[in-house]
Amino acid sequence: MSVPRPTDSVADTAYVGPLMEKMTWPAVRDAATAGLPVILPVGSTEQHGPHLPLKTDCEIPRAIAERAARHRPLIIAPTVGFGAKSRPLSGGGETFPGTLSLRATTLIAVLEDILAGLVRTGFQRICVQNWHYENGPYLWEAADLVSTTHEDARFLILDDPVPGLTDAELHAMLGPDFGGWPVEHAALAETSLMLAIAPELVVPGMALDDRAGHNPGWEVIPTPTDRISSSGVLWRASRSTAEAGERLLDAAAGCMVRALNTEFPRSE
Amino acid sequence: MSVPRPTDSVADTAYVGPLMEKMTWPAVRDAATAGLPVILPVGSTEQHGPHLPLKTDCEIPRAIAERAARHRPLIIAPTVGFGAKSRPLSGGGETFPGTLSLRATTLIAVLEDILAGLVRTGFQRICVQNWHYENGPYLWEAADLVSTTHEDARFLILDDPVPGLTDAELHAMLGPDFGGWPVEHAALAETSLMLAIAPELVVPGMALDDRAGHNPGWEVIPTPTDRISSSGVLWRASRSTAEAGERLLDAAAGCMVRALNTEFPRSE
Amino acid sequence: MSVPRPTDSVADTAYVGPLMEKMTWPAVRDAATAGLPVILPVGSTEQHGPHLPLKTDCEIPRAIAERAARHRPLIIAPTVGFGAKSRPLSGGGETFPGTLSLRATTLIAVLEDILAGLVRTGFQRICVQNWHYENGPYLWEAADLVSTTHEDARFLILDDPVPGLTDAELHAMLGPDFGGWPVEHAALAETSLMLAIAPELVVPGMALDDRAGHNPGWEVIPTPTDRISSSGVLWRASRSTAEAGERLLDAAAGCMVRALNTEFPRSE
Amino acid sequence: MSVPRPTDSVADTAYVGPLMEKMTWPAVRDAATAGLPVILPVGSTEQHGPHLPLKTDCEIPRAIAERAARHRPLIIAPTVGFGAKSRPLSGGGETFPGTLSLRATTLIAVLEDILAGLVRTGFQRICVQNWHYENGPYLWEAADLVSTTHEDARFLILDDPVPGLTDAELHAMLGPDFGGWPVEHAALAETSLMLAIAPELVVPGMALDDRAGHNPGWEVIPTPTDRISSSGVLWRASRSTAEAGERLLDAAAGCMVRALNTEFPRSE
Amino acid sequence: MSVPRPTDSVADTAYVGPLMEKMTWPAVRDAATAGLPVILPVGSTEQHGPHLPLKTDCEIPRAIAERAARHRPLIIAPTVGFGAKSRPLSGGGETFPGTLSLRATTLIAVLEDILAGLVRTGFQRICVQNWHYENGPYLWEAADLVSTTHEDARFLILDDPVPGLTDAELHAMLGPDFGGWPVEHAALAETSLMLAIAPELVVPGMALDDRAGHNPGWEVIPTPTDRISSSGVLWRASRSTAEAGERLLDAAAGCMVRALNTEFPRSE
Amino acid sequence: MSVPRPTDSVADTAYVGPLMEKMTWPAVRDAATAGLPVILPVGSTEQHGPHLPLKTDCEIPRAIAERAARHRPLIIAPTVGFGAKSRPLSGGGETFPGTLSLRATTLIAVLEDILAGLVRTGFQRICVQNWHYENGPYLWEAADLVSTTHEDARFLILDDPVPGLTDAELHAMLGPDFGGWPVEHAALAETSLMLAIAPELVVPGMALDDRAGHNPGWEVIPTPTDRISSSGVLWRASRSTAEAGERLLDAAAGCMVRALNTEFPRSE
Repeated sequence: MSVPRPTDSVADTAYVGPLMEKMTWPAVRDAATAGLPVILPVGSTEQHGPHLPLKTDCEIPRAIAERAARHRPLIIAPTVGFGAKSRPLSGGGETFPGTLSLRATTLIAVLEDILAGLVRTGFQRICVQNWHYENGPYLWEAADLVSTTHEDARFLILDDPVPGLTDAELHAMLGPDFGGWPVEHAALAETSLMLAIAPELVVPGMALDDRAGHNPGWEVIPTPTDRISSSGVLWRASRSTAEAGERLLDAAAGCMVRALNTEFPRSE
Repeated sequence: MSVPRPTDSVADTAYVGPLMEKMTWPAVRDAATAGLPVILPVGSTEQHGPHLPLKTDCEIPRAIAERAARHRPLIIAPTVGFGAKSRPLSGGGETFPGTLSLRATTLIAVLEDILAGLVRTGFQRICVQNWHYENGPYLWEAADLVSTTHEDARFLILDDPVPGLTDAELHAMLGPDFGGWPVEHAALAETSLMLAIAPELVVPGMALDDRAGHNPGWEVIPTPTDRISSSGVLWRASRSTAEAGERLLDAAAGCMVRALNTEFPRSE
Repeated sequence: MSVPRPTDSVADTAYVGPLMEKMTWPAVRDAATAGLPVILPVGSTEQHGPHLPLKTDCEIPRAIAERAARHRPLIIAPTVGFGAKSRPLSGGGETFPGTLSLRATTLIAVLEDILAGLVRTGFQRICVQNWHYENGPYLWEAADLVSTTHEDARFLILDDPVPGLTDAELHAMLGPDFGGWPVEHAALAETSLMLAIAPELVVPGMALDDRAGHNPGWEVIPTPTDRISSSGVLWRASRSTAEAGERLLDAAAGCMVRALNTEFPRSE
Repeated sequence: MSVPRPTDSVADTAYVGPLMEKMTWPAVRDAATAGLPVILPVGSTEQHGPHLPLKTDCEIPRAIAERAARHRPLIIAPTVGFGAKSRPLSGGGETFPGTLSLRATTLIAVLEDILAGLVRTGFQRICVQNWHYENGPYLWEAADLVSTTHEDARFLILDDPVPGLTDAELHAMLGPDFGGWPVEHAALAETSLMLAIAPELVVPGMALDDRAGHNPGWEVIPTPTDRISSSGVLWRASRSTAEAGERLLDAAAGCMVRALNTEFPRSE
Repeated sequence: MSVPRPTDSVADTAYVGPLMEKMTWPAVRDAATAGLPVILPVGSTEQHGPHLPLKTDCEIPRAIAERAARHRPLIIAPTVGFGAKSRPLSGGGETFPGTLSLRATTLIAVLEDILAGLVRTGFQRICVQNWHYENGPYLWEAADLVSTTHEDARFLILDDPVPGLTDAELHAMLGPDFGGWPVEHAALAETSLMLAIAPELVVPGMALDDRAGHNPGWEVIPTPTDRISSSGVLWRASRSTAEAGERLLDAAAGCMVRALNTEFPRSE
Repeated sequence: MSVPRPTDSVADTAYVGPLMEKMTWPAVRDAATAGLPVILPVGSTEQHGPHLPLKTDCEIPRAIAERAARHRPLIIAPTVGFGAKSRPLSGGGETFPGTLSLRATTLIAVLEDILAGLVRTGFQRICVQNWHYENGPYLWEAADLVSTTHEDARFLILDDPVPGLTDAELHAMLGPDFGGWPVEHAALAETSLMLAIAPELVVPGMALDDRAGHNPGWEVIPTPTDRISSSGVLWRASRSTAEAGERLLDAAAGCMVRALNTEFPRSE
């Protein structure tokens, strides 16, 4: 395959990271050549209640990666901003205005193309930071498919933001209103994170406590109305604070660094 | 299909546009109900020479739409940030580090899903502002496919940034170095636009004049090296100015407003 | 569409259920006309340690449905016997001999076709009983896709075998070795169920206690060897008993009946 | 690719074949290592008149393989139980309740995945025994596709159950009512086979003689009603006997053994 | 959907059929408005021995349709000139130079698009004349798929060129060397037809008698060399005559007319 | 892979080119072995006004290739006769009777299969001559996809018929009515070419001057009626002459020869 001829080294004035989307191609080339890991944040465009913006799931994983970049050199690829269909008990469902989702087959294809593109660019240590529950299996499927034809690449999938933390530790970090990850949509953790990351995007006074009227432990399609939270909030959000968000952000970034150091050791 | 129960009207403090990604779902609902048109910017993640960032093709169409929003109420959907494969004579090609593209079949599926999602959200006047040459036919194909099953929606595709302008008018606006749209990649127009939109992302002193060594008027795959610009710049960029960028931005926004007023008249 | 002309009623000697695969077409027609719900068991062909057969995930959901049929009239469709790719931390992964899985896109297509076929046959109350963790999101996706073109059908997805049971209740039922559903693969619950359902398929003395050497809370692809259980067993299996299996089978069948009675009430 | 660490040899008490679905993974591993051929039965879920069960096309190819296993060591993979769409003149068509079929594209994908999975498990001599006319070309297509990327595997496709037998020999075996394979659906041969294999699934007294009202030698879509057998039986079934079924089963198993010995010689 | 405004009637000098590819759009419009049936010939680009051209399978179905047009008004759509993969025992297989085939999924998509296009153009009586054995099931699948969304269209599939003719009648027509349709590839019938249709494309003196070395009644993939005819001829071709070709062409055209008159009666 | 055994050399009386569809397989084999380049003409089945036939876009690229064959040995593959959907401003759009087009995904698959087939046949120098504007990007995409798995093949894409010619040169060749390639549909150039190539297919006296009522420089889907030429002619056709067609045909053939000599030099 023909390749571009080398260009002189990156200008002293050029932005060199960690956000790939702001970098020039020679800067990306140098980062890949240096063996840096690349983080691919994957989110959604999805309702997050009457107080959070549609891009909440995009802001958070990128912010985690940016914080991790304070502790270890890495590059952050452009966020995948459209995700899997929202399901009523984890994201409110597809009936909310503003939720724009991809079919499963589309999402798998997108992830295959981007992961393969990162490998072709020269990265062999690729970390996916997910922040949209419904994306989970498609990340794994796409990485598995790309892996069969790109044998030298390794993919690290971060789906649980703070693996290993006990409920007690999470309550200590976030307060007693934290209801667990399954109902953490537009609720305490996400609202706190957004207060820490982009407070100007959180509507003052609109962070409600809410929930789906009924969760029987199974799903029905089409979803009956009483399984859908009318506000889009799936648990308590009212006691969210920027401080709790900061603590969670630090913890998640710490997990990312630990995962990177474990799976992609610097001396490798 | 079950639908979320109505939530009270949007809080006075909420952001109401034009960027959908910063809006809450009730704000999006209200915009759709009011019959506002929605603009979908479509770009790429692609090399743009040693002086412009990878997200150049995303920044520009969004900036055009934001400027148009000064003149007519509209909503701007999240930018589609990954586009069709880069071709050597229009974008430098796929061999540059940092260029991350989608297969044609993937891109069509993404566009189908998002356009259909915008219709489902309640928008029936949908405008696509493209800024990546290679995306063109896929936008049309996707809109045509969605149109067959969403008969009430209308799609307006803006592919030429300033339709109707003569070469003389373009040279008056941009200066004599403008080489025409076919070679306008990381060159005078794009660099000037970026100097107007996000000057902090333009590397000082790196805006070169360059070109592919040879353009015979046909294409060969795999592309011979002499058909690829070694810097990724396809024409003259050195005389770019923020002022020229402002003029072009105004002109493109004016075209968008004119197209919207023509095809989606306010009184409709 | 042309339709077969009516045939006389089902012979007195014909098998009338609940297993559709043993029924003749007139018997299926009569069941659909009578408004019975149909259960679609979905499993896998996957390693289950040195003591359980590859079809473990097929036997269990069908046995649950057969037991539920003691309490409410229903029909059981043929089991979908090939499922999503096995993941190392939930099923041992794809490297075990005998594990035969489908790509995600294939599985979605299979489920779409079969769900649509059940609707075409005349069933409008369709319940999917899953027993292979990795299948979960594909069931939802397929039902969602079919739902858009078959508006009168309702799909009930049972993914958690005993929704609502607390850890304490599960330990009371299965004993203290139960390690939770995430590691319940070829372990206490599945082995006990197989001892209750088909003891002749459980290899005496081979039900081990084992686990993956290391579960860091994230996934790496290709999977490092130390994340894969060498036996294929993901937790303790040695204290499995047919009695515990019977209790769990009763509980799961009870849940199915409760879900059917809730979502598809007999008087509907 | 990471692989599971070896487990001790198969327990003396374990089931070692020929049905793979009842085997544990170490038993499958040992069979593959020993170089045994694997048979993949492929059938359908399809109406078979008022006297035969929907799974007739699954029972027969598996029974043939089981009988062949008396004469040569082999393994039988789980039956592919959903097949290509039923066509009116070979299976009654898609309008019969209970017929559940796959689109052509789905079926090809299923077969690709399973054939590739068998190769990955370690089998290189793979025999497909088909018993649903409409599946034929898809078996060949899938094997051809898998063959291009798995060069060491060989696929043997058995589509004609008793290749080489003359009409006279078939009449001697089955009696004068045998009408030839094209109309052999729920008729003399299939009914006799089911009487030999699973007599409890044949409804006494319901084995009719019937046929499509009209077969002009071409097909029309949608199919006119007079081209569809009202009972689903396509020829004479009333004189079926278990004895004829036994003879045909023996003959088909003999053909399978002959084909295996020819194409996959033991000394290979 | 917007439609072109009516143009004046077709010029007296315009070609009005039956070959659609030579017609202007107003002439096609008039034919569709008049309710004429349209014939879609489907062939292949495939080796046909050392004496016949690659487009043999395209020439023959078009010639049949042209001859039928002498007896009943009809239109002939452009021939589908690339078909399903050649199989060794029916067409020599994919290893011959010059054979250019489509994957099954591609062919189905092509046929779907063209059949749907004919319906959109205004034809509701569509007849497919096939002359490449391997295409058969895909024609049916595509017509079935298009039928579900185009309920008013009817599709007539002609796969057997002379349905209803006995072996005796075929031998009377073609001579004793006719070996039956299964081996009729580049043999007596096809060669005679080409001598009647386009004698200048038949290489004098090269019409051989040949066959595959061995046809065991099953297939092996990859195909062993001894199952492939070395010349590409699958049976006797040496005694072919233009006179026999004329007789067969007349018979096939007669069958087409009979099928059209039966399924699409003129008074309909 | 098994291959056919060699057949004796091509008979003296056999047609040896350049049209592959008329050749026998041994003749194609010899051409490939000799290293000849192969030309793949790609066109459409599309309305071309009231005076030109539907196959205009197929006739022209094949005629260019045949003329080029006078100057350099080459082979011409069968024309791809169905192309991408017609767009209103370049081909009149999909609403004209007789226009039969492929979805983008179908066309890409067709081109992939045929290009890969040409490589498998033995050609490594493959030139695509396009004559349907809308096909452009799909040719590039398909060649790019095939190139990744067929590394030794080179693809030359000719999309502009006479690259490098100035407007002045085009006017000198065709006369002042030539309106530029973007509106050259059923207009001066195409009509003149058809008068040179196949005058019997041009309806006398029907070559009109026409245009779309309105071209605002953007596209709307569904297309408003006033953007569609009522005749299907997009510019002036009335002054077309066979002499101008001859000149253009010579020029285009000369460009093809030049491109072949440049990219596939004879001494290679």
